[in-house]
Order: sequence, then C-alpha cells, then structure tokens
Amino acid sequence: MEKINIAEKLSLINDHWNPRIAAELNGQHVKLVKIKGEFLWHKHDHEDELFYVIKGRLKMELRNQTIIVEENEFLVVPHGIEHRPVADNEVHLMLFEPAGTINTGNAGGEMTRENLDKI
Amino acid sequence: MEKINIAEKLSLINDHWNPRIAAELNGQHVKLVKIKGEFLWHKHDHEDELFYVIKGRLKMELRNQTIIVEENEFLVVPHGIEHRPVADNEVHLMLFEPAGTINTGNAGGEMTRENLDKI
Repeated sequence: MEKINIAEKLSLINDHWNPRIAAELNGQHVKLVKIKGEFLWHKHDHEDELFYVIKGRLKMELRNQTIIVEENEFLVVPHGIEHRPVADNEVHLMLFEPAGTINTGNAGGEMTRENLDKI
Repeated sequence: MEKINIAEKLSLINDHWNPRIAAELNGQHVKLVKIKGEFLWHKHDHEDELFYVIKGRLKMELRNQTIIVEENEFLVVPHGIEHRPVADNEVHLMLFEPAGTINTGNAGGEMTRENLDKI
C-alpha cells in the first residue's frame, strides 16, 4: 500500500490526451492526464466520468451549454451525455471512471488510447 | 449537471467525522469530510476506500505501519485491511468509495454515520 503524490505523478507525463492509471479500486480507475487543445465529441453509453481539475481551466462543452471547471473543482458527466473537453491552455486532470472506460467513448478514431500504462 | 467547488462545499461543514455526499457516479460516492483526533480501528469487508487529502496531514494507521498522507496526495486502503485515520490537526478529506460504505465498517458504534446528507 503506497500513497500517491499527484504532482509527482503528473511530472512524469510529457504528452497530451494520453491518460495513465494512478490507482484502481472497486473496479474503478483513478487516471491522470494532461490535455491541451480540443478533444472530439463523444459519449459513453454506460460509464459516468468525473473530471477533477488539478491545474488550469477546463472547458467542458456540452450540446446545450459549456461548463468552465477551475482548479479544485470537479464535474461529473453522466453516461449518455455528449461532451467535448477543451483546454485553451494545458490542463492537468484527475479522472474517476470505471476500469475499461475508453477515452473516446462511442467516437473511436486516432485519439483513442487503450491498454493504458500505470504510473 | 453542475460542477462542484471543493472549498465551497467544505466551508459548509462545521463538524468532524460526519461525511457528506458531494457526488454519485457508477454506484460510487464522492464524499467530503473534516476530521480531527483519532477514529476507531475498523475494516471494510468488501469496499476499497480512497482518501484524498485536500488540506492538512492525515496519519493512516495500519496494523504494521503508519502512512502519512499530505495535501494533494491520496491513499487507497483495500477492503479487508484494518485501518485507523488520525488527524493531529484538522484534516479535510475527499473520499471515493462505493455508495453505502459505512464509515465505521465492521466496528460500528457511536461514530457510525448512515443516511448521509448531500452537500
């Protein structure tokens, strides 16, 4: 059993949109990821996703609104809801979601990351 | 869908060892709690628990070691492992665990909190 230091783990990440697994519990993953720019529109048919902003300012675009999530705030995007994360400047995120959740959900494509590394 | 500001929610809590539910996703709860002093030894037979330190310094006593968890660090205590959270000074925690997890686990007693309020 070892504690996780978020900043230390994030310092090991040097790319964008490529989540790493920091912990697993109850069939859920805690992931860390750095993002910058626009992701693609997608949804998850079965998984709710929690986006916790460690650093920066996340714009979560939804079809009917945009929610700005600042440092030390989080947003839960329920399954079935189309969303697009946007980071005008680099954002550091912690994610909570079921193990096996695919980052691009129903959209697929070249930004898809599977078999994520642990960090 | 509304974002959660951790500091704002914590400012509404004026007691210790009384977790509130900040969010629910995938059958899991995100809880916020302020603690001070010593809790009781207990374990959870089926639930893993994540302790994220928002503020302060958590001493997690285990039977064979004590782990100090500082701000912006987290610890996962697997199910079945006896543990006792201790806060020499007040600590603000975010917890991530299955909905229905009882704070005192197998120990019960007067520090048990059930039917937690949402915050």
